[in-house]
Amino acid sequence: MNTQASDANAAAEVLSEEAVDALSRAHSASPETGSHRHEALLSARAANIKQSAVRDVFDISMQPGLVSLAGGNPYLQSLPLERLAATAASIIADHGLEALQYGGGQGTLELRTQICEVMAAEGILDADPENVVITAGSQSAQDVAAKVFCDPGDVILLEDPTYVGALNTFEAFEVDVQAVAGDEHGIIPSALRERIADLQGQGRRIKLLYTIPNFNNPSGVMLAPERRQEIVDICRDANIMVLEDNPYGLLKFDGVLPAPLRAANPDDVLYLGSFSKIFAPGLRIGWALVPAHLKQRYYLASEAVTLCPPTFNQLLVSAYLRDYDWRGQIDTYRALYAERCAALLSALEEFMPAGVTWTRPEGGFFVWLTLPEGIDTYPLLHKGIDAGVVFIPGAAFSSHQRPSNKLRLAFSAVPPETLHEGVRRLAPVLAEAITVK
Amino acid sequence: MNTQASDANAAAEVLSEEAVDALSRAHSASPETGSHRHEALLSARAANIKQSAVRDVFDISMQPGLVSLAGGNPYLQSLPLERLAATAASIIADHGLEALQYGGGQGTLELRTQICEVMAAEGILDADPENVVITAGSQSAQDVAAKVFCDPGDVILLEDPTYVGALNTFEAFEVDVQAVAGDEHGIIPSALRERIADLQGQGRRIKLLYTIPNFNNPSGVMLAPERRQEIVDICRDANIMVLEDNPYGLLKFDGVLPAPLRAANPDDVLYLGSFSKIFAPGLRIGWALVPAHLKQRYYLASEAVTLCPPTFNQLLVSAYLRDYDWRGQIDTYRALYAERCAALLSALEEFMPAGVTWTRPEGGFFVWLTLPEGIDTYPLLHKGIDAGVVFIPGAAFSSHQRPSNKLRLAFSAVPPETLHEGVRRLAPVLAEAITVK
Repeated sequence: MNTQASDANAAAEVLSEEAVDALSRAHSASPETGSHRHEALLSARAANIKQSAVRDVFDISMQPGLVSLAGGNPYLQSLPLERLAATAASIIADHGLEALQYGGGQGTLELRTQICEVMAAEGILDADPENVVITAGSQSAQDVAAKVFCDPGDVILLEDPTYVGALNTFEAFEVDVQAVAGDEHGIIPSALRERIADLQGQGRRIKLLYTIPNFNNPSGVMLAPERRQEIVDICRDANIMVLEDNPYGLLKFDGVLPAPLRAANPDDVLYLGSFSKIFAPGLRIGWALVPAHLKQRYYLASEAVTLCPPTFNQLLVSAYLRDYDWRGQIDTYRALYAERCAALLSALEEFMPAGVTWTRPEGGFFVWLTLPEGIDTYPLLHKGIDAGVVFIPGAAFSSHQRPSNKLRLAFSAVPPETLHEGVRRLAPVLAEAITVK
Repeated sequence: MNTQASDANAAAEVLSEEAVDALSRAHSASPETGSHRHEALLSARAANIKQSAVRDVFDISMQPGLVSLAGGNPYLQSLPLERLAATAASIIADHGLEALQYGGGQGTLELRTQICEVMAAEGILDADPENVVITAGSQSAQDVAAKVFCDPGDVILLEDPTYVGALNTFEAFEVDVQAVAGDEHGIIPSALRERIADLQGQGRRIKLLYTIPNFNNPSGVMLAPERRQEIVDICRDANIMVLEDNPYGLLKFDGVLPAPLRAANPDDVLYLGSFSKIFAPGLRIGWALVPAHLKQRYYLASEAVTLCPPTFNQLLVSAYLRDYDWRGQIDTYRALYAERCAALLSALEEFMPAGVTWTRPEGGFFVWLTLPEGIDTYPLLHKGIDAGVVFIPGAAFSSHQRPSNKLRLAFSAVPPETLHEGVRRLAPVLAEAITVK
């Protein structure tokens, strides 16, 4: 990654126009087909399918010269690429007829069995490979969950802010996503209870509570262990399925991992996992652990989307889990991300103007900044790019279209000295916004 | 593949119970969750998500001892696996940080550009990489099309029989799939016109015509070139989008390929392609070529399902298209499948009892058998397994739940002598059914 500030201005010059385009598209509700006669052919849900600001900025943030604090990419440089190359070769040379052929829709039994070991490390000790469905990343697992559970107008409760990809996926099914209040320890149980009572009192059908309990994207917040069972109990009593998304669970910097909501609640939690953060997102291998009585429905819905997960990719992940020290690699990641998070927090202390506050995550990839009320961070993205730094404005992570005084910084892919430089570039942009206000 | 008849009985013995299970599940409309309180959480569409008989038989047909004429698998033994192994290794060793990382939601520009070359070979000369969206096989491209275009109750017109995976995908969106009459040259234009007038006269909203014009799965039928433009014109006049699925187009045994419906109709045909039949299904790489004015909507819907296609897989397909003689490999496949099709047809001539007729495809993977009226081929699957041969009963390929006197035989993955043995085993099963009737 090029971290020279001297390159940043030239790159920013080139990028500004593209960035403005991206922003204006990201800010509009959905792409326009104008008055074309095919407009009449579109589904009602098509109008709900939106541009993700994160995905737009993804392209921009790959450009040299910019310090990208935008993308939540794992730091793959720490993987043993030469050895993985040899493994990939042997899979095709020795098992090519399987690796390149169609496979079962649920995924290979070997990988589903190994995934149960990964989930044991995450705190789920009773998972049965029979109830695991392998998906195209946890994104596809979210898509299938919405498909199986949600009719138009149904409610999914979720954290605000939450993962923009989940928002896009749910809204594509015409789901009404409704935020539940939280604090620095995650969802507040009493607020959840009240929200449910209020919505059910209005006759609304609440189907799912979508939650990222460990190191929420974008806030970095961890749901307090002592709130977890209460949240499941509240949902069970209201006949709401918990959709627990736990891609960052193993990336707690230190100390004991809190048990997932699924751990003690096999019938009431649909659990989503992913190899994107602990191994390699480019393979697009995630999974759902589905309550036994719903597994067949979930599996068939998944099969109707992709037929089967890619066989080669499953064999490569299986080899990685079988032949490599994957637990040691996670320890490497934990130490690496802990160091980067500390470097980011330290730079924020050094450079941020008065009036800016931020979260102090215990794991994951993200820090979440709050500016004074009344400042919209969206226009600041453009100014940040001009200054040679990219972040994601907070509005991306909420379903409502209102301006947000928040923004997300991702530290996972960025070395400490570059984080320092990025925050140094960002500070005057935020300071100016605060002064102008 | 073990072709010894002596092994077949033992294997069949073991398999029968599993097969019966599979059949009974396949024959039921959808899996049951009984009276569980979570039943109330399911979407209306969940009831439409069905078991595919083909996918069930897929598992069974992998067992040794059986001659499987069930699965439409390409014959990967003819691929240069050692060389592909080295290519895979160099992708990870030299480009691992890209191959294993997140990528753009539309797919890589390199592969989208190469896909335009593949489509040129298929007869589409004006494709722009900007309008190509890479998907998880053409199955996922079908899922996205249904999502973007179809509300519950909307109609998709299609051939009967047609691809079972498409039926499952469309029905998962509560689409009303309606068959259009065809003959040995595909959809009959006048029948299409009448069907549209009839349905639109009832106030029904017809969104798509889904068609596999080249070597339909399962019938093997090729849509006559002289009908193609008329079919697009009929659909354009009725404001119906044509969804053209062409995985087998390059696998015409000899002679000139007819131009796809998309070729001269860029605005009115959404075209689906796949590397599953011409390279490797286990990579799950397909694509959609979308009319320019609908591209952005289609792309965003695809991104909401899988975030991005797997990067490694795209790089491997790109390397294959760049560095290998992929056109030569297709010629190899064409000759191989031509020989197998001829062997199957010859064995049918030799063994089939009077009363059985079949298609004589000019390409693709499948031959479609018709038994006398009144015979249901579903129970014959069980008897076939007992006799050491597996096929797919015809009912799988129709949306209606009525018994079918048809069945599908796939020749693509089976050497000629094994095809001969499989038909030898199948013949007495069919003969008995005809006699009993």
